[in-house]
Amino acid sequence: MEETWVNTAEPATSGPGHVAGTDLHLELSGEGSTRSRLMHALRESIRSGRLVPGTRLPPYRSLAQDLGIARNTVADAYAELVQEGWLSARQGSGTRVARRAAPLHPDQRRGPQRRTRRRVLHDLMPSSPDAAAFPRAAWLTSARRALAAAPNDAFGVGDPRGRPELREALTAYLARARGVRTDPDRIVLCSGFAHALRLLGSVLEGPVAVESYGLGFHRALLEEAGLRTVPLTVDSHGARIDEVPDTGAGAVLLTPAHQFPTGGPLHPERRAAVVDWARSRGGLLVEDDYDGEFRYDRQPVGAVQGLDPERVVYIGSTSKSLSPALRLGWMVLPGWLVDDVLAAKGARELWSGVVDQLTLADFIACGAYDRHLRRMRQHYRRRRDLLAHTLAARAPHIRVSGVAAGLHAVLELPRNTEDAALRAARRQGLAVDGLRPYRHPDSAMPPRDGLVIGYGTPPDHAFTAALDALCLALPGPPQNDG
Amino acid sequence: MEETWVNTAEPATSGPGHVAGTDLHLELSGEGSTRSRLMHALRESIRSGRLVPGTRLPPYRSLAQDLGIARNTVADAYAELVQEGWLSARQGSGTRVARRAAPLHPDQRRGPQRRTRRRVLHDLMPSSPDAAAFPRAAWLTSARRALAAAPNDAFGVGDPRGRPELREALTAYLARARGVRTDPDRIVLCSGFAHALRLLGSVLEGPVAVESYGLGFHRALLEEAGLRTVPLTVDSHGARIDEVPDTGAGAVLLTPAHQFPTGGPLHPERRAAVVDWARSRGGLLVEDDYDGEFRYDRQPVGAVQGLDPERVVYIGSTSKSLSPALRLGWMVLPGWLVDDVLAAKGARELWSGVVDQLTLADFIACGAYDRHLRRMRQHYRRRRDLLAHTLAARAPHIRVSGVAAGLHAVLELPRNTEDAALRAARRQGLAVDGLRPYRHPDSAMPPRDGLVIGYGTPPDHAFTAALDALCLALPGPPQNDG
Repeated sequence: MEETWVNTAEPATSGPGHVAGTDLHLELSGEGSTRSRLMHALRESIRSGRLVPGTRLPPYRSLAQDLGIARNTVADAYAELVQEGWLSARQGSGTRVARRAAPLHPDQRRGPQRRTRRRVLHDLMPSSPDAAAFPRAAWLTSARRALAAAPNDAFGVGDPRGRPELREALTAYLARARGVRTDPDRIVLCSGFAHALRLLGSVLEGPVAVESYGLGFHRALLEEAGLRTVPLTVDSHGARIDEVPDTGAGAVLLTPAHQFPTGGPLHPERRAAVVDWARSRGGLLVEDDYDGEFRYDRQPVGAVQGLDPERVVYIGSTSKSLSPALRLGWMVLPGWLVDDVLAAKGARELWSGVVDQLTLADFIACGAYDRHLRRMRQHYRRRRDLLAHTLAARAPHIRVSGVAAGLHAVLELPRNTEDAALRAARRQGLAVDGLRPYRHPDSAMPPRDGLVIGYGTPPDHAFTAALDALCLALPGPPQNDG
Repeated sequence: MEETWVNTAEPATSGPGHVAGTDLHLELSGEGSTRSRLMHALRESIRSGRLVPGTRLPPYRSLAQDLGIARNTVADAYAELVQEGWLSARQGSGTRVARRAAPLHPDQRRGPQRRTRRRVLHDLMPSSPDAAAFPRAAWLTSARRALAAAPNDAFGVGDPRGRPELREALTAYLARARGVRTDPDRIVLCSGFAHALRLLGSVLEGPVAVESYGLGFHRALLEEAGLRTVPLTVDSHGARIDEVPDTGAGAVLLTPAHQFPTGGPLHPERRAAVVDWARSRGGLLVEDDYDGEFRYDRQPVGAVQGLDPERVVYIGSTSKSLSPALRLGWMVLPGWLVDDVLAAKGARELWSGVVDQLTLADFIACGAYDRHLRRMRQHYRRRRDLLAHTLAARAPHIRVSGVAAGLHAVLELPRNTEDAALRAARRQGLAVDGLRPYRHPDSAMPPRDGLVIGYGTPPDHAFTAALDALCLALPGPPQNDG
């Protein structure tokens, strides 16, 4: 192990001329080439907060000299870390720790994710549907009809609610398929769940109660809007609604159809309880119906929104049902909230493209959306079954949960084995997610070890090989020492 | 004229329980029904700042009683003002002045614009192209080819730079048509100019020097990002670059191809000067090339970006060239700025739809974009000529400026006649913009009176009638009192 102290410059908080020196303990430990050990050491220093955003790094020549390694090695490591988003390079101000290097929630960690992706052979990252299954021909048919039928003013400045054709099609579809009660005037289109959450950020009153396990990206969006998030315990019946009153929350963000990522639907009593809470306290439920369409074994669960449309913001999108690249979503709002959300969105549509809006409206209205969903349900169910059977045969000691719906499963691991399993997965060229990054840092729940497996992403021909790699990465059965 | 003092409640800044009374002088002056006079009085009170955002209005029953008018009249006026975005109504907290009621810059004024639009017979608002001219058939042809050719991964999670097909097509097009020097890796797609400015908001170092006349919406976006804007004098050669150093600005936002809204291109010496400034001070030019493609009389003016790609952020979009409803734009970035902008945008594409991206790539690459622009240039030039001839014949005392390019003209008015001209326009059912809202509030330039006329918006069959209405709204020639 090589160790050295190198001189870095502090963040130039008091102007570019004022740069004081500070010492950094840099350890080139572990396996791999000098370059990869250097990159690891720099990433760890940033991750741990020893190198704070804005810190200027020493010129690569100096660092190379201090560490006794080749200049090119340092220059390459810097360049790669810039590429990954850990560092940023500006002409005239050298290389610095990137301003956004810190937040490492699943959707935003440019660095590690990119690094992983570069040598990915098998992609079982959660949250992405099968890209090969996008219904190109049917989409084009709808686009043709929609472009022919659209009035001229569709190509003028857009209403921030979105096109009426799509809001009307959604009103009918959501009522039929998800039990959502609304009318087109209470729907506001957006570019997806993250956009919806950004718009709500200026409208919700905090703190916001969230599930102890969920996307860190969503928590980060709320916190960027100045809303503190407070974790609710999650058990096999979903989030513990009885904990909401004590949090002082003004709003609750839930995934009632299928708790993400740990499992099942919210229990009927809890569905009623969260609506009762919202009514009695003037609170609001934000319902993330991210994969409400993909259910396999259990009875369909309608949206909680149907219980009280004036107390629930229902959010859906095409990200799981069609493609995350389509960037179309919708918010179904209580009537009293529409103006505030529109005020946050602005006076004109600045986000969603009108051709996609009109095409989706036709796609839903002509029945193509239902047909596509039916086909995808069968497709994903087959994959889910193959995953479950493969694991039951080859890793029977691993418990699989959350597979009655959706596009992912959680493999529960013995305590303190998650990191090792992730390393083993990387060695197999397998991209999967650990369960720990989903845990709210303030949660009172003991941390659980697990892998979050997305079975939607790989193309059909590659799915079996991905499962093989997964089985090789899993820890073996516990040894009986007795 | 009826006058009355009504009791309103102050903004509940210290919690919903703390509501102190305050008096408001409400004048129901002017013409029209009681309801429209009430609405006018409320709007004016909000616009002038007497009713600040968050102020709770009295219940409609009380106000009706105070004013001695029918309850329904007040209830209707409230409902309409909620609809227009001036007020917001929440269950349990009554009707309040909307949080976003204040900023009345052209792109965001929900209230007046909607109000105007409701009875608009002729739309000469600037900044919008002819919606009837969207090339539906050619767009669909490109969509068909693009959907057939796209690799499967196009429908997976998107790279935040945007699709490579479009970045490659833009690199070639912008080099050829606008003299922009770049490569696809330095292009980041976005949903339009406003999105680009939002992304730059966290990257630029302020203050930002802006033109004394420009979109208030753009100034507001920069200021929301914590960047103070400082006005530069605008004359017939564009913005006065010699003023930049004294502002202490880290960046300058300009419309070099065609100063918006007052007129011509930035003088060649000033183009060189702003690049010199950026080089010597480590500054940055943000180049808004909003209508660079629409030039009529003068020689084409290339982008300033071509002078120094490492010192200029070039921003363009399809909002003027195709449709503001398409929501596709691009930033051409200095290499050193790419990572910071991507960090601001996030790890995945959350905004631009992939089908539109791929379609535009094909549309540009196959030459359809050039053909469309040529056609639109002829179309708008005919309208521009008709506008100029009509005004020369019927209002020769009005000077018309800024018509060598773009989709709008400025009609210069005698001092202190802008408001009267706008009122006269409204009486003609004519939607036009005044020049004053474009003026930076801190500008040292004396306020100018004028109308900003967009000649792109009306359909062909309605254009002559719109010009007739405009001529009727203009002030007559000055009287000779001697």
